[in-house]
Amino acid sequence: MRVRMKDIAKLANVSEAAVSLVLNDAPSRISEEKKQEIKRIASELNYVPNIAAQSLAKNQSHIIGLVVPDIENPFFAKLGKEIETALRALGYLTIIVNSDDSFSNEQKLVQTLLNRGVDGLILGLSNEAFHVPKELQQFLSTVRVPFVLVDRPLTTLSINQVYFDSFKGGYDIAQRVIKAGHQKIALMVGDKKVPNAQSKIEGVQLAFETNSLEFKEEQVLEVGYHFEDGYSKSATVLQDPSITAIIATNDIVAFGVMKKARELKIKIPDDKSLIGYDQLLMTEMLDIPLASVEQNTHKLAEQSVQLLIKTLGKKDLVKEIILKPKFKNNKSLKKVKKVVDFD
Amino acid sequence: MRVRMKDIAKLANVSEAAVSLVLNDAPSRISEEKKQEIKRIASELNYVPNIAAQSLAKNQSHIIGLVVPDIENPFFAKLGKEIETALRALGYLTIIVNSDDSFSNEQKLVQTLLNRGVDGLILGLSNEAFHVPKELQQFLSTVRVPFVLVDRPLTTLSINQVYFDSFKGGYDIAQRVIKAGHQKIALMVGDKKVPNAQSKIEGVQLAFETNSLEFKEEQVLEVGYHFEDGYSKSATVLQDPSITAIIATNDIVAFGVMKKARELKIKIPDDKSLIGYDQLLMTEMLDIPLASVEQNTHKLAEQSVQLLIKTLGKKDLVKEIILKPKFKNNKSLKKVKKVVDFD
Repeated sequence: MRVRMKDIAKLANVSEAAVSLVLNDAPSRISEEKKQEIKRIASELNYVPNIAAQSLAKNQSHIIGLVVPDIENPFFAKLGKEIETALRALGYLTIIVNSDDSFSNEQKLVQTLLNRGVDGLILGLSNEAFHVPKELQQFLSTVRVPFVLVDRPLTTLSINQVYFDSFKGGYDIAQRVIKAGHQKIALMVGDKKVPNAQSKIEGVQLAFETNSLEFKEEQVLEVGYHFEDGYSKSATVLQDPSITAIIATNDIVAFGVMKKARELKIKIPDDKSLIGYDQLLMTEMLDIPLASVEQNTHKLAEQSVQLLIKTLGKKDLVKEIILKPKFKNNKSLKKVKKVVDFD
Repeated sequence: MRVRMKDIAKLANVSEAAVSLVLNDAPSRISEEKKQEIKRIASELNYVPNIAAQSLAKNQSHIIGLVVPDIENPFFAKLGKEIETALRALGYLTIIVNSDDSFSNEQKLVQTLLNRGVDGLILGLSNEAFHVPKELQQFLSTVRVPFVLVDRPLTTLSINQVYFDSFKGGYDIAQRVIKAGHQKIALMVGDKKVPNAQSKIEGVQLAFETNSLEFKEEQVLEVGYHFEDGYSKSATVLQDPSITAIIATNDIVAFGVMKKARELKIKIPDDKSLIGYDQLLMTEMLDIPLASVEQNTHKLAEQSVQLLIKTLGKKDLVKEIILKPKFKNNKSLKKVKKVVDFD
């Protein structure tokens, strides 16, 4: 049975009007305590506002556009499916477009979506967009419907966005790796200009500093986001005996590194430790022994959708939601003896 | 440099008008031989018609809608990306929607795309649609723009469609399996009502008959299309010693069977042979030892796009393109001794 406002009102012992005010974040004299109680009850009952009724008088299409940089990447394919499912549950249809990580495609596609009358947008920006920050800012200022950035944030702007804390992700990996005795690592990133990558580098850097270890700029390799990148750009670091651990951009890039390692007869983790990122479902399905950092796609989708829907009602809302990534396992991380320095 | 009609005309030693007639499949007195030569040259030069010029006077949006049953399935994620790339090269933007294998979603989404003014549609139908053939036919008759069915055909209708020959796919697998000495197999299909599955079953059946072996209806298991299906519905056949080989719906389902086999300590292919279907890139990336049947997604995308674009110009064109699948390797197919029957 569908939960209604009056059910919440009854349980919270308030009027239906009070529930409506609180759930719509409208100004009222209701105490903060009561507000929290009403919200808690609504959340516990999985209350979903009746969109159809709400928007009868409004001029809405109930269509949301989702822009992803690469629909073939399992991370974005899953995110697309999750966002679509979450939006459908709220009575919205999703239109997905693929920018192929190109800023010019992205602009054209967003324009198309706007012309076709979407109510709002969820944008997973192309990495290329971050190379032209002024143009990107200018472009976003022309988007005349509410939108939320997903996964790749624009940390320099006050803007609606939901993303993972890559600083923490990088810091956690480096701490684990250092604790396992590694002193020199290679850090692969997709594109240094994308804030995620920058934060990850800073997190890794801090962990090394905290442990009084050196981490140099040249240990950061800018390789891209694809399997082919991991495969074709890892031979040198795999064959460098001074490097004992490799941190890959994401799991797909790590798969490429693994394939190259097999070809070079380098054993992971016996000869070289390897850590992925974003913990693809695939690694669990296939029991692939790869340490990784889980980024909960379901949560990312849910939070982005909720924020967007809130934004549709209140155009001046600006909120940044930062989710916590989680280091997943030690399957491809090997303990090494610390080299004692006698100088 | 962009290839123009006059370049082709020069090479074929004909007038530009002749090239135009041939490439647009317009009636003309040009000999069949010359026609083939012109088309060959155009294809070798990768000639792309100048859409912008062609459609200046027409009322076109240059947006194509693509409906997929499950965007998270790597096969459809790759197909989506390939179709988008092929359409972009021809000057079209692609809008992707995910039906989640539901016929009612599909109808709503197609209506939305039509209302938003797409020029044409590429439809990967939901399996649910095949359960209500009359409603499906009725629904398709209301689609007022040109469309092409992709991957899941509707073999009972004269309709534009591009798909793989599943009869051949099933036949080839069964022949290989029988030649390796297997006599009793289990055949998993996604949904018996989908023509692909029916054709595959018939192909397998024919191979068994040809080899004077028995293949019973109850050896066909209807399991679905997901990893979870392979994982949760394979224990019985894995543990049945009379069954020596399992043919899975697709590679993702095969991955589920592999995981269950690992848990049950059943070795593939030593204890049980396993054959996937659709040869996901993933199996190559990760060197997963899984025999499979390659369905070339690039070709499928290319042919669907080309057919749709042709259809945009000539609304009465009806063409069925059937691509050949290809058995890929024997990695998880083990030779077994033929059991000699002494009765």
